[in-house]
Amino acid sequence: MTTYTAINLVARPTGGPISAELFEVVQKEIPQVGPGEMLVKQTHMSLDPAMFGWMSPDTESYIPPVELGTVMRSSGIGEVVASEHADFKVGDRVMGMLGWQEYNLSKGQGLNKVTAPMPDEAILSIFALPGLTATQGLFSIGKPQKGETLVVSGAAGSVGSIVGQLAKAEGLKVIGVVGSDEKADWIVNELGFDGAVNYKSAALAEELAALTPDGIDVYFENTGGPVQNIVFERMNNFGRIAVCGMIADYGKAKASPGPNWIPLIKNRITIQGFAMPDHFGDVPALLAKLTPYVMKGQIKHRAHVLDGLESAITGLNLFFTGGNKGKLIVKL
Amino acid sequence: MTTYTAINLVARPTGGPISAELFEVVQKEIPQVGPGEMLVKQTHMSLDPAMFGWMSPDTESYIPPVELGTVMRSSGIGEVVASEHADFKVGDRVMGMLGWQEYNLSKGQGLNKVTAPMPDEAILSIFALPGLTATQGLFSIGKPQKGETLVVSGAAGSVGSIVGQLAKAEGLKVIGVVGSDEKADWIVNELGFDGAVNYKSAALAEELAALTPDGIDVYFENTGGPVQNIVFERMNNFGRIAVCGMIADYGKAKASPGPNWIPLIKNRITIQGFAMPDHFGDVPALLAKLTPYVMKGQIKHRAHVLDGLESAITGLNLFFTGGNKGKLIVKL
Repeated sequence: MTTYTAINLVARPTGGPISAELFEVVQKEIPQVGPGEMLVKQTHMSLDPAMFGWMSPDTESYIPPVELGTVMRSSGIGEVVASEHADFKVGDRVMGMLGWQEYNLSKGQGLNKVTAPMPDEAILSIFALPGLTATQGLFSIGKPQKGETLVVSGAAGSVGSIVGQLAKAEGLKVIGVVGSDEKADWIVNELGFDGAVNYKSAALAEELAALTPDGIDVYFENTGGPVQNIVFERMNNFGRIAVCGMIADYGKAKASPGPNWIPLIKNRITIQGFAMPDHFGDVPALLAKLTPYVMKGQIKHRAHVLDGLESAITGLNLFFTGGNKGKLIVKL
Repeated sequence: MTTYTAINLVARPTGGPISAELFEVVQKEIPQVGPGEMLVKQTHMSLDPAMFGWMSPDTESYIPPVELGTVMRSSGIGEVVASEHADFKVGDRVMGMLGWQEYNLSKGQGLNKVTAPMPDEAILSIFALPGLTATQGLFSIGKPQKGETLVVSGAAGSVGSIVGQLAKAEGLKVIGVVGSDEKADWIVNELGFDGAVNYKSAALAEELAALTPDGIDVYFENTGGPVQNIVFERMNNFGRIAVCGMIADYGKAKASPGPNWIPLIKNRITIQGFAMPDHFGDVPALLAKLTPYVMKGQIKHRAHVLDGLESAITGLNLFFTGGNKGKLIVKL
């Protein structure tokens, strides 16, 4: 009998860093495929901030939480190693919700073939959740117009870096909010952002004001935290705010307050929260929108690769510390 | 020489109740009309919460503040008493921004003839700013759907009472937030709201929960204050919030914080602030939308009439105390 490793969620986070006790590492027997089934050997697995929502006990979130005692949810890329499925053959490369495990027995539901001649890491960094989320939020909610100013928080993160590059390609002035000088340097000098501020700076408000002399038309919110109020105060008339993530508050027992709503009226601002699972039906259109920018070389990425399934557990905490440099990917 | 009374704004409010020192009551000579001009004798003048914005020094608001030393801005109805204007004749009834004054010399710009066979008070209560604002915000932002639940704050106010009645006519469950038992009684028993809560109640959250067992789909915000957070927590997936007024915070030196944005993502909520002056071009369409409800008797109103121009000054404070019962109108 040959076994593989899987990781189950066995308890829910209560705030603060993710502890190893929330998970159970188990060994399972590699199954035989039956009629209509295929076996996928996962090669690269994506870590995403959305996972904190999937782990939380909140039953009102946009998708049900991961059931305790079952494999932790995640997307990934793998290779079909056995198949009795009509549409997939051995050697096919597939992407989908493969979970925190080395093998996935599947009937093909929710799995798509990957044919693009790009490495797994690039696929997961651009064409998976990050790129879809960036494309959906930026164009549907942000409605970017050439000449406008966009600010994106978590700007060196997997979603934020794509949002900023898409907006640059559309002719906007783009300022990124990051948590380190290294990230500021990367988004300005490698990705072509017009400027960056470090949210840890004591002069954050002044720095942001200096970089956005014409105010802010679009804010893409990935983090929350004190920068939110500072950006909010600088929003122009008819500004749009896409709320994608609030990582600064996910670990808190008590969430921090948001801005007062008077500027919403004075400046006729729209704020809209969104979650990618609502738009899975639009994935073909989103990919069609995103692909030309990638083909023109306008979307660069960097992957921060962790080694081995169990590195996922401590890897999650990199979202809280900001220690990740680029898209977090676990190589199996 | 015959004179008339006008009231100029001479200082800006700094928070708290409106003081008489902000205004100067002046006597002016009644002018002669020249070619292309007409003279309007104002009969009824509207007081609106938007006036606090017009008086404030904030130059970033949606229309410029009233210049110090000039007549305070307001809408009203009057009668043409002299005319050398081709489109208006003596005896015509007109509505527009007539200001805090008994007479207005006009070239007709922004003035519209009133032909509806309704008393001035009803015109100002339904077809002027309140009804236009309610119609614009409810339908464009609230997007009410039959069977949904709507909550409106300031529900006995000029805008809120129309919002609630329009939503009832559209088949929604409608709960109003008010500041007195008398107002609660009026909106439920006279206007047909499904329920009311008094924002001063110690058990506000529990009462609102009991009245909205299926959550809240649309929130029409006229007031701000602690009820905002309570409503926000009960918003359903894909809920819509129209932000029209924040009277609870207008008098404050430091505005209170708003809700944390995490629920915006979890429940994919949209919040949009709006101001009627942006939509003056849509007035014909808004009137066409509103009129059938009025004709069917679905929109009741009550006017709170103050007597004499100078009563406007202290009348403004009724918005802060909630002492007004219905649309505030000054009879000249």
